[in-house]
Amino acid sequence: MEVMVNEIKSWIYDAGEVIKKSFQTDDLVIDTKSGRTDLVTNLDKATQKFLTQRIMAFDPDAKILGEEDGKDRLEAFSGRVFIIDPIDGTMNFVLEQENFCIMVAVYEDGIGKLGFVYNVMKNEFLWGGRGIGVYCNDEKIEPPKDISLSEGLIGLNHVMYQKDSWHVQKMGEMALGVRMTGCAGYELIGLLMGRRAAYVSRLAPWDYAPGGVLIEELGLRMSNIEGHKLNLVDRELFVAATPKAYENIMEIKG
Amino acid sequence: MEVMVNEIKSWIYDAGEVIKKSFQTDDLVIDTKSGRTDLVTNLDKATQKFLTQRIMAFDPDAKILGEEDGKDRLEAFSGRVFIIDPIDGTMNFVLEQENFCIMVAVYEDGIGKLGFVYNVMKNEFLWGGRGIGVYCNDEKIEPPKDISLSEGLIGLNHVMYQKDSWHVQKMGEMALGVRMTGCAGYELIGLLMGRRAAYVSRLAPWDYAPGGVLIEELGLRMSNIEGHKLNLVDRELFVAATPKAYENIMEIKG
Repeated sequence: MEVMVNEIKSWIYDAGEVIKKSFQTDDLVIDTKSGRTDLVTNLDKATQKFLTQRIMAFDPDAKILGEEDGKDRLEAFSGRVFIIDPIDGTMNFVLEQENFCIMVAVYEDGIGKLGFVYNVMKNEFLWGGRGIGVYCNDEKIEPPKDISLSEGLIGLNHVMYQKDSWHVQKMGEMALGVRMTGCAGYELIGLLMGRRAAYVSRLAPWDYAPGGVLIEELGLRMSNIEGHKLNLVDRELFVAATPKAYENIMEIKG
Repeated sequence: MEVMVNEIKSWIYDAGEVIKKSFQTDDLVIDTKSGRTDLVTNLDKATQKFLTQRIMAFDPDAKILGEEDGKDRLEAFSGRVFIIDPIDGTMNFVLEQENFCIMVAVYEDGIGKLGFVYNVMKNEFLWGGRGIGVYCNDEKIEPPKDISLSEGLIGLNHVMYQKDSWHVQKMGEMALGVRMTGCAGYELIGLLMGRRAAYVSRLAPWDYAPGGVLIEELGLRMSNIEGHKLNLVDRELFVAATPKAYENIMEIKG
């Protein structure tokens, strides 16, 4: 397992260097997918391709579930599956040139084993997995304090907040503040590091699986908004929180 | 003027070092002001006191308008006025230990002359003033591209967004995304650096005056939501944006 951890970390760091260098050139190609705010760039595609090649060289039998290149659906989760978000927060990547993450999860027979979430420009790399703990760069981190929703910040999706889906406005009122960052990886790192009490959004498997492995390893809570296990297939309304804040959210959502 | 610029920068850097060191100790004292989400800490007060002492040693005739210590109101803006926000984004300072700014503006006879906005943990220091340009750390920056609201991100206040005050939800829909960061300095740096098309919030003079001097120097737009000059006295609904996005907002707000 340690060999695989170090391999994956080195791929992700290499991918991060390519992305950083891209800011010195002018050849970013931006396309839209489902709508004008759903972007994909040549760098998203190139990063997924790069990671896919490394994975396939490392383990030719592995399956890949990823945001780009038509790899966004798997028939079955048997065997080893790599779940990739090459650039989580593409809008931030394009408009802010920061606040985006490269993310990878490793699942074996449907069980999350390893997770990697790298905030490239901040050089903040959360990684670890089932039974091996969670690290921020080279330092092992402790589970954050189990604060209630009223003692911390909540990260929210702006569409859910605008529509007050599942009473998220009340969740925001109970929290000490509402944050919207446009990057699931940023929010999940925030939760792991104790900067958030909770995060509620609408996410795809590659948005939550990598951070999710780390969240479960640290004893934090994660599910869909109805309290069920996330299905790794559809976009779902996603909740991750400290144990106390999770209870607060499940009560408020009705 | 150059002497004063360098003096003020050195005070702010010194204050930043004290704040960074405070994270190694456990003696943060947190109080609330107008309500449970309006925090002040011993570090806010100590930082304002430190800056005030330096200002008074440099110019005993100067007046001070600052968030803390009952200095939040001035009778008149004649002469030289220093406007201080010792820690802008106190909630982030307490809960995230990042995403907060030290901010200072220098006004002379009611006219903004110098502005300083220092994102301490990111080491991103925007400074400059009327006729001297705007710098990020040691590098002079150019005005950002004049993008329309539909081409960029908008930073919004969560209470205004929840209540849809002045149709800010429609502003959010027109933009490529909504961001909420809990720090006016972060948002105004974002606008100066081209990471935002616009920022709409409810702000006090110390929240907007330091960044505001830089915004005007770069030819960006700033006013209250009704399109009038900000009064430097009350909390007001605040708009800052690229020229094009400013026009979009003034049309949408009705």
